[in-house]
Amino acid sequence: MSYNLLKGKRGIVFGALNNMSIAWKVAERAVEEGATIALTNTPIAVRMGEVQALSEKLNAPIIPADATSVQDLEEVFTKSVELLGGKIDFVLHSIGMSPNVRKKRTYDDLDYDMLAKTLDISAVSFHKMLQTAKKLDAIAEGGSVVALTYVAAQRTFFGYNDMADAKSLLESIARSFGYIYGREKNVRINTISQSPTMTTAGSGVKGIDHLMDFAEKMSPLGNANADDCADYCITMFSDLTRKVTMQNLYHDGGFSSMGMSLRAMNQYSKGLEEYTDENGKIIYG
Amino acid sequence: MSYNLLKGKRGIVFGALNNMSIAWKVAERAVEEGATIALTNTPIAVRMGEVQALSEKLNAPIIPADATSVQDLEEVFTKSVELLGGKIDFVLHSIGMSPNVRKKRTYDDLDYDMLAKTLDISAVSFHKMLQTAKKLDAIAEGGSVVALTYVAAQRTFFGYNDMADAKSLLESIARSFGYIYGREKNVRINTISQSPTMTTAGSGVKGIDHLMDFAEKMSPLGNANADDCADYCITMFSDLTRKVTMQNLYHDGGFSSMGMSLRAMNQYSKGLEEYTDENGKIIYG
Amino acid sequence: MSYNLLKGKRGIVFGALNNMSIAWKVAERAVEEGATIALTNTPIAVRMGEVQALSEKLNAPIIPADATSVQDLEEVFTKSVELLGGKIDFVLHSIGMSPNVRKKRTYDDLDYDMLAKTLDISAVSFHKMLQTAKKLDAIAEGGSVVALTYVAAQRTFFGYNDMADAKSLLESIARSFGYIYGREKNVRINTISQSPTMTTAGSGVKGIDHLMDFAEKMSPLGNANADDCADYCITMFSDLTRKVTMQNLYHDGGFSSMGMSLRAMNQYSKGLEEYTDENGKIIYG
Amino acid sequence: MSYNLLKGKRGIVFGALNNMSIAWKVAERAVEEGATIALTNTPIAVRMGEVQALSEKLNAPIIPADATSVQDLEEVFTKSVELLGGKIDFVLHSIGMSPNVRKKRTYDDLDYDMLAKTLDISAVSFHKMLQTAKKLDAIAEGGSVVALTYVAAQRTFFGYNDMADAKSLLESIARSFGYIYGREKNVRINTISQSPTMTTAGSGVKGIDHLMDFAEKMSPLGNANADDCADYCITMFSDLTRKVTMQNLYHDGGFSSMGMSLRAMNQYSKGLEEYTDENGKIIYG
Repeated sequence: MSYNLLKGKRGIVFGALNNMSIAWKVAERAVEEGATIALTNTPIAVRMGEVQALSEKLNAPIIPADATSVQDLEEVFTKSVELLGGKIDFVLHSIGMSPNVRKKRTYDDLDYDMLAKTLDISAVSFHKMLQTAKKLDAIAEGGSVVALTYVAAQRTFFGYNDMADAKSLLESIARSFGYIYGREKNVRINTISQSPTMTTAGSGVKGIDHLMDFAEKMSPLGNANADDCADYCITMFSDLTRKVTMQNLYHDGGFSSMGMSLRAMNQYSKGLEEYTDENGKIIYG
Repeated sequence: MSYNLLKGKRGIVFGALNNMSIAWKVAERAVEEGATIALTNTPIAVRMGEVQALSEKLNAPIIPADATSVQDLEEVFTKSVELLGGKIDFVLHSIGMSPNVRKKRTYDDLDYDMLAKTLDISAVSFHKMLQTAKKLDAIAEGGSVVALTYVAAQRTFFGYNDMADAKSLLESIARSFGYIYGREKNVRINTISQSPTMTTAGSGVKGIDHLMDFAEKMSPLGNANADDCADYCITMFSDLTRKVTMQNLYHDGGFSSMGMSLRAMNQYSKGLEEYTDENGKIIYG
Repeated sequence: MSYNLLKGKRGIVFGALNNMSIAWKVAERAVEEGATIALTNTPIAVRMGEVQALSEKLNAPIIPADATSVQDLEEVFTKSVELLGGKIDFVLHSIGMSPNVRKKRTYDDLDYDMLAKTLDISAVSFHKMLQTAKKLDAIAEGGSVVALTYVAAQRTFFGYNDMADAKSLLESIARSFGYIYGREKNVRINTISQSPTMTTAGSGVKGIDHLMDFAEKMSPLGNANADDCADYCITMFSDLTRKVTMQNLYHDGGFSSMGMSLRAMNQYSKGLEEYTDENGKIIYG
Repeated sequence: MSYNLLKGKRGIVFGALNNMSIAWKVAERAVEEGATIALTNTPIAVRMGEVQALSEKLNAPIIPADATSVQDLEEVFTKSVELLGGKIDFVLHSIGMSPNVRKKRTYDDLDYDMLAKTLDISAVSFHKMLQTAKKLDAIAEGGSVVALTYVAAQRTFFGYNDMADAKSLLESIARSFGYIYGREKNVRINTISQSPTMTTAGSGVKGIDHLMDFAEKMSPLGNANADDCADYCITMFSDLTRKVTMQNLYHDGGFSSMGMSLRAMNQYSKGLEEYTDENGKIIYG
């Protein structure tokens, strides 16, 4: 179903890897809604992934780039403007990676070079993208930029490790740059805080399946999936949300506003049963 | 410009008074986007206001109702379902009034019968609306309900008085009922926290013009107006936001995420000049 | 252990019922820290409860009062000032009750007269207390007022029902009145958001034992108990926190900043085991 | 006035430079309250500053250290435990510096090596401190760690630049590590978000005097100063707050909960007068 919400708009999508990626779905939906887009990911991801197939399907150029390299980002914006035929109306940042998580370093045993990389890849890349775009004046007046984030930026989830700190930094950058880019070019910058999602990245998070079960049972509408997220991104790229900026928008079926649901508690209590005494009273301690 | 975002949907709009009302703009935009709607307001507002003209223009029935009366609300939902030909897909709550503000009672000299009325009209009416709708099963699976609110629910603004407390209560009701209605019927409930807006209600707030100037200069995108708000409401009623619930969504040009902008500070500092000594240094105290 | 933190200070404690009450512990600790205090509760609570024993132990007068009655509150403040020999330095509001919860009305089947009572008793009473005190000028310059609340004001907990809305309203009143009373008399007003606590009130909440187990396992420091809370209240009444106002202070072992702990997830996962297939993979659906 | 709140406790204070420093005041108050402490700052700050005088006055050893160096931090903790005669009960982190701000790079023209330094000095140093302490098991069970922060972590203030992002990161680290250190050693970790303060660091912020005037007039209790902050830190180091962790605690006279005060608006409006027409009506635009 298409509403032509992005008719005539030009966009850049960072981070599409395969058809489980949120960025992949956003790219598809953006084109469905009438946009022309460019795709970008790291050179290795472009070689290894299925992004070539997406490029062909959507008739969207791929511009390989390391999002931590200002030079590469300059190329992304310059070429995109050239290939798409004008300034960019919307950008999606869907980039995150923690070497500490990959190397199974716990949060109280971080390697600090790796932490610097986590922050650079997952958060500072967003600043680099915005600063580069602004210097090149590559984003059109009234443009919209979205970065994907997770509620771990506000509340601690075991195992999410230094990615939580990276997401906090990312959200702060969205606010800080949102002020500058807003007042000067009416460009809005927001983050969407998405349900845990079974992407290639997500599936690497320890215990993701149990966590997704918990989130599913806590959220009155259940977890939002990648398709849902793509729909939501479309609204944020459209002209209908031109006064929304510097916000962190939860797209999570209600999870972020839940303390405890009956369904999750019932599940939790099943595990408690063995701790009850003969009268059914919980034995703590 | 229409995207047909609400094609085939049925809605109820509470609170349209005249063409400055946000509810009025929402009604117009909803119909533009393909919805059929019913309008409702208090009997006196219907008699005095221009809502009859809107009704005719939009071919939308008016159902006069006191939103604090469960009986009246039952009529609104029952008749709307009947007249619109099916269950309701979206509802806008744009209702608020403080007798204490009207009677110029300050916050440390509230009349408690009036406070009870402020809360009943401006917040509990939302619960009554939702409970009534749910009992009648009048809202369709996947429906969307929005109430308008203001950042005074989070931060104190002089003169906003007991309306701040009413808005906090309103936002809490959105969360509490969002859980129930979400898990049982996939109905989502959110509040939109709008810039100060020069509606008939807004224009009654003491010092609204200076406050709007401050908000305008603080917000990188400037204040959102009633038309902008209508656009944003449309996205929340559409099928593209089906996993967003229990959220308070700031629609304010960035105001809520600002501590101090350069423009607002420049304005503020002008007033300070007379307090500077001959060297241009501020004299405090 | 006493630090004489409240030496020479006069206080009023609302809501002590028995030795499980947080207010009871606060009364005891305040006196230990050198304060003289007055106790107040409803006439029926005074007759039925053990507050008489506390009064004798602490040499603290009891002033029975309905906290929803302005007249009764006037008596509490007037008599307290008289009996304690001067203006009041600190006040604790530990009052909450929901007739809807008592009558087992679910949140989508509230009785609105009962809801009005819930709000009046649990939240508006705080405004009445503050307005009465201010009109009588009964609180000393630099005084400190604390009301107890719960994280359900921010996030929905099944079964907490309309008390969640009352707590949101309570916290809003703390902010709104904190502005007025702060600028005029340097009186600070805060809420303390306490872990679920096994008081007489708490023990009436449905499923409180399972919820307490969950909160205990989520919170890195475990749940805060009534004694801990009393200690924290003492710091807020002392002269060491004179610039803290209009805040909601979580006193909960870290619960409010947790998304998921390993301990809670382990417990949760136990209940999941029966849903795993023969390969140990979770079966959803 | 001393309450012996920290009697027998051992602490480390990072960041005392001169008698305007908050850390300086905290050091003095901690000793007044019965603690023995060690001081640390960068070698250059130790040489240039007046910290030697403080050391003598408080009989507190100085351990020069670069807080971004794990090796130096190991020395701080090892020596402190040795010199103070046991494990550490409390730590203050009062460290922040932005080379971008110093070099007058605007936020849309950041140097990324400098940004990496801002983050390392102002935020990652906190993680390094905590990880080092934990590996050495240098903090006693039930210990308390506080880092100083600013509301710019939540809301954008023009000119605060990349320090805002650093403070967001700092607060996230407090949460993330608070979970780990809490569950394993009952060590609590919080941040205190302080009013703008006329320290040596603060006085370098562009337009700090006007900003302080605005904050003073917005805050019902006025700005909190360094002495006030020291008092508040003492409560957080004491045994009376043992269940408070992973929190960001505003110590700001109410600023963070204000949207607009009458005093600030009056000041703001003075600057508006010249924009009024002959009827006293504001001319916008």
